[in-house]
Amino acid sequence: MGTPWDELTLTFSRTSMFPFFDIAHYVVSVMALKQQPGAAAVAWQNPLSSWFTAMLHCFGGGILSCILLAEPPLRFLTNHTHILLASSIWYIIFFCPCDLVSQGYSYLPVQLLAAGMKEVTRTWKIVGGVTHANSYYKNGWLVMIAIGWARGAGGSIITTFEQLVKGDWKPKGDEWLKMSHTAKITLLGSVMFTFQHTDHLGISKHNLMFLYTIFLVTIKVTMMITKSPLVPLAPLEDILSRMLFGWQQQIPSCEKKTETRPASNGPCSSASEAPVDAADDAKKKYAKKTE
Amino acid sequence: MGTPWDELTLTFSRTSMFPFFDIAHYVVSVMALKQQPGAAAVAWQNPLSSWFTAMLHCFGGGILSCILLAEPPLRFLTNHTHILLASSIWYIIFFCPCDLVSQGYSYLPVQLLAAGMKEVTRTWKIVGGVTHANSYYKNGWLVMIAIGWARGAGGSIITTFEQLVKGDWKPKGDEWLKMSHTAKITLLGSVMFTFQHTDHLGISKHNLMFLYTIFLVTIKVTMMITKSPLVPLAPLEDILSRMLFGWQQQIPSCEKKTETRPASNGPCSSASEAPVDAADDAKKKYAKKTE
Amino acid sequence: MGTPWDELTLTFSRTSMFPFFDIAHYVVSVMALKQQPGAAAVAWQNPLSSWFTAMLHCFGGGILSCILLAEPPLRFLTNHTHILLASSIWYIIFFCPCDLVSQGYSYLPVQLLAAGMKEVTRTWKIVGGVTHANSYYKNGWLVMIAIGWARGAGGSIITTFEQLVKGDWKPKGDEWLKMSHTAKITLLGSVMFTFQHTDHLGISKHNLMFLYTIFLVTIKVTMMITKSPLVPLAPLEDILSRMLFGWQQQIPSCEKKTETRPASNGPCSSASEAPVDAADDAKKKYAKKTE
Repeated sequence: MGTPWDELTLTFSRTSMFPFFDIAHYVVSVMALKQQPGAAAVAWQNPLSSWFTAMLHCFGGGILSCILLAEPPLRFLTNHTHILLASSIWYIIFFCPCDLVSQGYSYLPVQLLAAGMKEVTRTWKIVGGVTHANSYYKNGWLVMIAIGWARGAGGSIITTFEQLVKGDWKPKGDEWLKMSHTAKITLLGSVMFTFQHTDHLGISKHNLMFLYTIFLVTIKVTMMITKSPLVPLAPLEDILSRMLFGWQQQIPSCEKKTETRPASNGPCSSASEAPVDAADDAKKKYAKKTE
Repeated sequence: MGTPWDELTLTFSRTSMFPFFDIAHYVVSVMALKQQPGAAAVAWQNPLSSWFTAMLHCFGGGILSCILLAEPPLRFLTNHTHILLASSIWYIIFFCPCDLVSQGYSYLPVQLLAAGMKEVTRTWKIVGGVTHANSYYKNGWLVMIAIGWARGAGGSIITTFEQLVKGDWKPKGDEWLKMSHTAKITLLGSVMFTFQHTDHLGISKHNLMFLYTIFLVTIKVTMMITKSPLVPLAPLEDILSRMLFGWQQQIPSCEKKTETRPASNGPCSSASEAPVDAADDAKKKYAKKTE
Repeated sequence: MGTPWDELTLTFSRTSMFPFFDIAHYVVSVMALKQQPGAAAVAWQNPLSSWFTAMLHCFGGGILSCILLAEPPLRFLTNHTHILLASSIWYIIFFCPCDLVSQGYSYLPVQLLAAGMKEVTRTWKIVGGVTHANSYYKNGWLVMIAIGWARGAGGSIITTFEQLVKGDWKPKGDEWLKMSHTAKITLLGSVMFTFQHTDHLGISKHNLMFLYTIFLVTIKVTMMITKSPLVPLAPLEDILSRMLFGWQQQIPSCEKKTETRPASNGPCSSASEAPVDAADDAKKKYAKKTE
């Protein structure tokens, strides 16, 4: 890679998230909260509870990684600038007269810009999580992956758990199975950055950050424009499932035995002709998600 | 303020909670547990589980603040004196023949005395929480407020969560919204003590402790005598909601827009003529509580 | 006790758990997971989720004790050897063609051997937990008991909680009461080892480990061979309940009062003629368990 390219990626990897990208992240998170049914009513009746939920949406990933590393979950409250920023955004979005913000946000270009910038912050969070976990456990690359993942995609877990406690969300056994598209991409990124951090990838960090961010943003934007869920990881998953779990299918002799495996719900039957079905299931999941 | 007054408040603020006020706190908490339906039967069938629940009722606030600060939640088990005291009170209350204790407790004066002394411990807990959090984060006044609040009123959160896990309590979306009267007063106190601790209030700590305790006890006792819920904070809440969320109502042009805000349950419609209704809702809440 | 006996118990107490006993523990845990309805289907659809659940089954006790002591719950991920071992066992058990492993495991002798070895690891876990807790709180013998118990029997708590979050398990009020047979034995062991550690028992640690392990294994094996639940602790519980809660029954005068105690479900009435019933209830519980 040439010097100008390196310069570009270096300057990119040194971009500060603080004012603008964080704002985009907060806006997208709070708008996602507001679009939940009844959220606006809650904000009017009990602003404190609504504010608390909004903070969970904005800082959930950090809170989860704090819990997983046994750090004070309240630490995010010590950064008053970010709290103030997120709170004012929450206030504007929920209490702006005539819902001006919601109307402005309803235009696709605005959404695209905000979502793209939010994806950029995701890269920074993953890198931060991996580095932070490495400061705890030198060689604990599993922990590094987990923390990077938690920082990047953990917000949804925290908010889902909060909804569970509030009773807004009744879990179903297979709900848990569905790993969202974002979670998968974040996991992939966390793995890559971990291996880069342990020098198992022959690529410099700033290059990886640049490329991974491009990857994130393009996928997000394409998914938002073409409402159809493009599934960049499906082939990868397919290959993996073939490699790991597919070869059992070459032994037809014990189809019956696998049939007799204990199973309550339908999908188990698909276990006997698995990998293709697995891919199908995956597609179905995405279809469900985007409906 | 004169010297005798200062002496009074100083001696008051130096009162030790240990033998008597703690006992009152344990008695009130365990009696609250026993008055839950089926609690007595549980105590007979599985004393260990009942004892554990009683400990949660007695030390819930401390446990919650420990979790929030990533300290061992089991630390409360190291203070053997308090555990022994709470356990013996639990034993006496649940297994005293002929329910003598319950009968004695059923007299209003006894209840008033116990409840009043319990409120005194609340002040001490809030102050302890604020000071403790300050030892972690020098300027983290948000954390100080949160920890003071958790110590003072967190017991109910812990026990509610335990009931959720046990399945005794099925959460409803709006259950979560109702902030109990006590929680609000405790939050107010936590805010005041935090600002006092950061020298933003021109009042010495012992005076504030004295006045706030008087405030707590009078409100509690009045609420217990006149079964009617007097709502000292309603006007404050009303003013606040007018200041923060009321001014949108001056723009009648976008009533329709606010109507069209996504909302599942009725209350959202009340959002369009909010502040007065908010106060009404609050009153309704209290009415529900005291029925 | 003579020298050969001491030598025997010493060498026994110095046995390393690592390769074989841990394998047995992982096999038993993962098989228990696989025998849950639908687990196999989950493994095919979403291997990652199934792997995560398997890890919770294998390392749940350690995770719980980490949470209770405010240590990073992810620490178990740093021991790569154990993770690799457990993961490969999970992979073999779930994806072995023709379910060879399940078939091999279906023979009683194999199950007996595996279960027996798993019980051995339980002793080691309890001792480890007690010692670890003692390094935190010198005289906190309550904490030592709790941590030893959590390490030894906490896996079931963690997995139950996971099922609750996943919605596979709907809690009922009395579910929580039932303390499993294993939990009771583990609690007894944790108490004994704690008192041994604080020198309140006149027996050396290696002897206690040896005897307690024999006790565990024999009970487990007998319970598996004679499907009938033998309840070695029932008499002990009976005596205890008589001592602690039985003497109230000598005062017949206040039967009526105890009847009037608030209670939603039937069992409360049994409170008035408690201890015998308590034993019955216990037996009923075990009967339920083994059906």
